[in-house]
Amino acid sequence: MKYSKNFYQIKSNETIFDSMKDEISEIGYYSLPFQDISDIKSFASKVKQKYIAIIGIGGSSLGTRAIYDFLRHSNNYEKSLHFFETTDPIILNSNIKDLDLDDTFFIVISKSGSTIETISNFKYLDSLVTIDKSNCAMITEENSKLYNYANNHKIKTFIIPKNVGGRFSVFSAVGLLPLAIVGVNIENILNGCKKLHNSFFNQEEYYEPIMQKARFFVENKHRFNINVLFSYSSLLESFNKWYIQLWGESLGKININGTKQALTPIGLIGPIDQHSFLQLIVEGKRDKTVTFIKVNNFADTTKVPNTLEEIKGLEYIDGLEFSSLLEEQANSTIQAIEEQQDIPCDVITIRAVDEYNIAKLMYAYQILTSVIGQFLQINTYDQPGVEYGKIILKDKLSKDIIL
Amino acid sequence: MKYSKNFYQIKSNETIFDSMKDEISEIGYYSLPFQDISDIKSFASKVKQKYIAIIGIGGSSLGTRAIYDFLRHSNNYEKSLHFFETTDPIILNSNIKDLDLDDTFFIVISKSGSTIETISNFKYLDSLVTIDKSNCAMITEENSKLYNYANNHKIKTFIIPKNVGGRFSVFSAVGLLPLAIVGVNIENILNGCKKLHNSFFNQEEYYEPIMQKARFFVENKHRFNINVLFSYSSLLESFNKWYIQLWGESLGKININGTKQALTPIGLIGPIDQHSFLQLIVEGKRDKTVTFIKVNNFADTTKVPNTLEEIKGLEYIDGLEFSSLLEEQANSTIQAIEEQQDIPCDVITIRAVDEYNIAKLMYAYQILTSVIGQFLQINTYDQPGVEYGKIILKDKLSKDIIL
Repeated sequence: MKYSKNFYQIKSNETIFDSMKDEISEIGYYSLPFQDISDIKSFASKVKQKYIAIIGIGGSSLGTRAIYDFLRHSNNYEKSLHFFETTDPIILNSNIKDLDLDDTFFIVISKSGSTIETISNFKYLDSLVTIDKSNCAMITEENSKLYNYANNHKIKTFIIPKNVGGRFSVFSAVGLLPLAIVGVNIENILNGCKKLHNSFFNQEEYYEPIMQKARFFVENKHRFNINVLFSYSSLLESFNKWYIQLWGESLGKININGTKQALTPIGLIGPIDQHSFLQLIVEGKRDKTVTFIKVNNFADTTKVPNTLEEIKGLEYIDGLEFSSLLEEQANSTIQAIEEQQDIPCDVITIRAVDEYNIAKLMYAYQILTSVIGQFLQINTYDQPGVEYGKIILKDKLSKDIIL
Repeated sequence: MKYSKNFYQIKSNETIFDSMKDEISEIGYYSLPFQDISDIKSFASKVKQKYIAIIGIGGSSLGTRAIYDFLRHSNNYEKSLHFFETTDPIILNSNIKDLDLDDTFFIVISKSGSTIETISNFKYLDSLVTIDKSNCAMITEENSKLYNYANNHKIKTFIIPKNVGGRFSVFSAVGLLPLAIVGVNIENILNGCKKLHNSFFNQEEYYEPIMQKARFFVENKHRFNINVLFSYSSLLESFNKWYIQLWGESLGKININGTKQALTPIGLIGPIDQHSFLQLIVEGKRDKTVTFIKVNNFADTTKVPNTLEEIKGLEYIDGLEFSSLLEEQANSTIQAIEEQQDIPCDVITIRAVDEYNIAKLMYAYQILTSVIGQFLQINTYDQPGVEYGKIILKDKLSKDIIL
């Protein structure tokens, strides 16, 4: 009898860091902070249309949306972004009503160039208004069907490098082009990424927190199989959705030992979800870690007025800035969770509502995801589990054609 | 030595059904389908303002939003609902920009009458425009601070009965008043509720599916501690949020045996989240049940055009109605999940995008939640876990005043 097995074990931080350094040359997103963005900026500055329609789904829209929704309420952009993500017919037609199609610039984004939702939306919009090189750009992989279509029609194309996965593509043209068109400062976005990148790979400020967090999540993945991100600003609602894709699609994998992995992301918004999900965190089973995100400075001094004295019992909020109230609500919830003493909890504070800070946060989450993937010994960058449904769909619909 | 203990056990379906019948007289939401709505309808018909601002959070807004967002895209309502839910200053000011304050009717909703988010928003809006009986109604518990304020100012008040909890209040004036004002047929809403109510309590069509589902979830709560609701229409995004509150806040409890409970809700939207969370369901740890919701008839015939032949490989979607494409995407994902054979999965199909069907779905989820609560032997209707954070907040802010 012969038996040999190398059971999966959690590696040392040093080994993981070495693997991370090896990834830099293989995985494309690490290079994006240092890319040349002159072509994006120059093209963006020439777009005159008021409405910018982004036709894309998943990694082709979530990251752009995260940054845009974080910034748009406190910036008076003259242009607006509109997202065509779904095959839901009622939403498709409703979204079109928000546009003046003759004053719309279309950005078609699909890495593979054959995403069903994207192509069907593109075809439909193209049947309503002529879409050509005067009002369209495409972002796709080299030699995809969309790439060839764009070339044939002389439509400007931006390339998604093969080694940049959809959910890691926000800092490529996928995110930077629409954001630059709308007026976002994309240099500051890349500066935020660079800061985080260098800090981690030079083992400075952000190195230890990321390594420790990743290690804790992996060592306790069976006990705490749910990771809650509790963001204390509605500006971060789309960021939460981007996080859910990044986390779920990167870490929901079978590992080197054949074991299905366990980390499940949940996004919450404070204080709204204090009135929804918080009860479950406090009194439910201890199966969750909780990460709070706070915004340090909203640059907004709106105050709760000292009025309506007849409504007694809430005098302590009178005259308070809403931003202080929000911060104290976050602090109180954090304290209530910490005092339970059996809910793992950490707090990220971002300094301001600007390009630099949201980019830093997102790049930090990308690196955290990569580190956890290394610890789990999975392929962080593929998504084999979603292919089977696509094959069934093609099979179903192709049969319909024959019948 | 003496030792005695009655360990917690899962009761029989018959015992649970008897307890459910006993709840009818105690718990207010069971009576709502049979309430007299003439006062709501008559008041609603007199509101002339174009913009309807709902100042409320959690149970005071989520249910209304679920129904409104389901219906509004395919109905040309002349009025629009606007939700003031948060203390986030940037969102508060951004929401105000969507209104003409002089043409706005304000509905202030707080069961306790002292919800901080609601009172602070009300105070702020009242500082910008006079809010009185000409442009305001209030919905609250009898004798609350808000109730007394409304009475003193002769503002019309609708009562939330003491035994109707916030997350079970959508079919009270909380939901019905704003929906009636905007033009939703609230009789059909109550008809949907009645249908479900009678079917369950007469042990007809919907009795067995609800009992079986509840029992399965409870018996397997430690293995499958996450319940995913995968809704195949963006129209159901707000319904998902309502479900998360209902499930999380009702079932996240310590039970009669002192054990913290384990069911955690997650809401997904198809096909968008095929490009995000699906990978985790298919290849991640088997800790999730998945419930699919499909819409049978969108009453929309928008087709994918037979154009752009140069984009090869997707001919099978040409000429297809978007609603059929969406349905086949749902069916393909369902089949892919079912073929895994170790992911518990069920499918709910709703017939049409109308008042009757969304109400039936929501009432079914309320009853399901109540049945699971009975099985778990918890108090489904309170939320003690959120009080502690509120006390800390009051303490923090009151100290600030003294300093």
